Amino acid sequence: MKLAAIVLLLASSLCFAQESGDFKPATSNVLDAQYPQVDSNSRVRIRFKAPDAKNVKVNFWSGEKSAMEKQPDGFWTFTTRPMAPGLHYYTLNVDGAEVSDPASTAYFGGSKWASAVEVPEVGVDYYLPKDVPHGQVRQVWYHSSVTGTWRDAFVYLPPNYDTSKTRYPVLYLQHGGGEDETGWIRQGKANFILDNLIASGSTKPMIVVMANGYATRVGYVMPDLTGKPFLGPEFIKVMQERMGAFEDDMTQALIPFIDKTFRTLPDRDHRAMAGLSMGGMETFQTTFNHLDLFSYIGGFSGAGNPFLMGGKFDVKTAYNGAMADPSAFAKRVHLLWIGVGTDEPERMKSGLESLHTSLDEAGVKHVFYESPGTNHEWQTWRRDLKDFTPRLFQTAAKTR
Amino acid sequence: MKLAAIVLLLASSLCFAQESGDFKPATSNVLDAQYPQVDSNSRVRIRFKAPDAKNVKVNFWSGEKSAMEKQPDGFWTFTTRPMAPGLHYYTLNVDGAEVSDPASTAYFGGSKWASAVEVPEVGVDYYLPKDVPHGQVRQVWYHSSVTGTWRDAFVYLPPNYDTSKTRYPVLYLQHGGGEDETGWIRQGKANFILDNLIASGSTKPMIVVMANGYATRVGYVMPDLTGKPFLGPEFIKVMQERMGAFEDDMTQALIPFIDKTFRTLPDRDHRAMAGLSMGGMETFQTTFNHLDLFSYIGGFSGAGNPFLMGGKFDVKTAYNGAMADPSAFAKRVHLLWIGVGTDEPERMKSGLESLHTSLDEAGVKHVFYESPGTNHEWQTWRRDLKDFTPRLFQTAAKTR
Repeated sequence: MKLAAIVLLLASSLCFAQESGDFKPATSNVLDAQYPQVDSNSRVRIRFKAPDAKNVKVNFWSGEKSAMEKQPDGFWTFTTRPMAPGLHYYTLNVDGAEVSDPASTAYFGGSKWASAVEVPEVGVDYYLPKDVPHGQVRQVWYHSSVTGTWRDAFVYLPPNYDTSKTRYPVLYLQHGGGEDETGWIRQGKANFILDNLIASGSTKPMIVVMANGYATRVGYVMPDLTGKPFLGPEFIKVMQERMGAFEDDMTQALIPFIDKTFRTLPDRDHRAMAGLSMGGMETFQTTFNHLDLFSYIGGFSGAGNPFLMGGKFDVKTAYNGAMADPSAFAKRVHLLWIGVGTDEPERMKSGLESLHTSLDEAGVKHVFYESPGTNHEWQTWRRDLKDFTPRLFQTAAKTR
Repeated sequence: MKLAAIVLLLASSLCFAQESGDFKPATSNVLDAQYPQVDSNSRVRIRFKAPDAKNVKVNFWSGEKSAMEKQPDGFWTFTTRPMAPGLHYYTLNVDGAEVSDPASTAYFGGSKWASAVEVPEVGVDYYLPKDVPHGQVRQVWYHSSVTGTWRDAFVYLPPNYDTSKTRYPVLYLQHGGGEDETGWIRQGKANFILDNLIASGSTKPMIVVMANGYATRVGYVMPDLTGKPFLGPEFIKVMQERMGAFEDDMTQALIPFIDKTFRTLPDRDHRAMAGLSMGGMETFQTTFNHLDLFSYIGGFSGAGNPFLMGGKFDVKTAYNGAMADPSAFAKRVHLLWIGVGTDEPERMKSGLESLHTSLDEAGVKHVFYESPGTNHEWQTWRRDLKDFTPRLFQTAAKTR
């Protein structure tokens, strides 16, 4: 066979793969829904019924808004270019109304129950259910004297928790802005990630607590933000109030409740906190204000708090100078971990890279992890969790 | 003050209540969403942004489709007449597209993540979180040799399960058609109902298992039902296959898993099953086929299986004659419980009433409960659960 013929054959087989496709219903669909579909080239095909609509667009939150095409049967369709692996939030815009796709499982994001499509990562199964012992995820309710309300949280208990008598370390793991306490299980698959890491022996069995990151103190009256600019002073003030209330709720109500309810190792050497995006900011605020309670800190695509700090981060003075003496800090905090996806928006990426550089220059020991080819999305945070948790609770020494 | 003046004052205050209203955001809204709103007359006000739409309708599944009114700001609004108490599913129709309201919590119903609005029932709080000990709800994963897949279930554990050494009876509690294993917690508030009933001493502490009622056997290929009539023979065949697979999954995989995983009393005297609508049919099929496993049976707006039985129900011959000898049946089955809402569709109501009459005429001991003024909706099933569970596990004698 001549080289030209081989090249032609290769090219035509590539065309075949790209054109006819091998689309299958996404694993994120509701029962029996045939769309969205994903092919082996990671392209996504959406189909949505809107017979009388003038305009339907699909809006991938980390991608672009694209016009869908109306078919004669009243359905609108659209096929994406190859997408990065992971769970991609999207909504549909129907004549100006931003709505969810009824064929998708609903995931709480963007302050609503949004749609998302799962694009598999070839050869990767650390976040899928496998034939290993499975932990349980419990929904628990606690009364918070800070908020004056009943609040719920999700708690992952490692396999065999019920039959063992062991006490376990605890990771507090927070969702991002516009998400809630359901995110790390529904979107993040944190339970399967932990099951698999614990089964392979790379991560110590631990309890993971996922709380709701929004809180307001008893009697607080939320101001009307209608017409106020996003990230303007009124907005930031609300955010500051809520983050402070969450910090209080977590340290005064949630942690005591968890330590009373579960067989925890209730000291700072066995307590970690991490969070994504807004949850990373909450993590930095809560842990640095309470280093008596935490010794492991993770910021997943979010760390420090640029809004409360006026955009500046000075390692020497930040958090009342907790890191001013890098060697004392390294003894006290067993892990400072920062991660970002290489395809995240520039502002996010450069913010975290510059934090990493500042810490390096100041000689503050930390881990900086970059997730290749992923955006400000859950695949980045799944990978973060996979890199972060094996580093937890490996230090035996007691510290204060 | 003259009588006429008093009447006028009363009338004007009524008008005030009915016209200006005292609308407040519904408890079923997502965080910070100002709409839907409910007033003290149980009227619901919906507001939805769709600036370029020609037609927007609100579709209350147990009520009517109503045209919404376009406002100059691009929002559409609609206010209902006073509604029955409880959680009402609804969707919005935007130029022919049936979608969920982004302001509502998403509840899995109608085979999609739908919207619903909670209308409070005046003076009634048995399904609200109160200052009593709270149980936990656990999500567990089990591998089913029947379906060949990992399946999940939700398990309510009564307060103090972790600290007691007691073994508990188990109620298997099923959702309806188009719903899933999340329904009894998210829509039904089953955990709060049990918490409150257990705290008042009227219900024995028990474990409640909520599984997914849809299953297919390993290797089953779902036929394409496109264009096939709803409840036609192809549809019924799929339903029959799925209900049989669910019965096998429950009796061969789920029950053994639950009895292995939790401190249960693993015998028929301490095992109940109930379900709503399709779940009621599944309950009758599963329990009557396995009276060695169950001794308490509940059908909430669904019992028997009219589809598989060709619409006929003969007490003497039904379920291989299990009820042919009423006195033997009453000794074997401690509770046969049937319920229906007085405002349910005629076919549903007359079906259950006729089952009740047939059982009465044949002398088969059972409880027939009617929920006043409620439709084929969750308020009926919350009340059912409240009436049903205090009757469970009160019989000490061992039976076979």
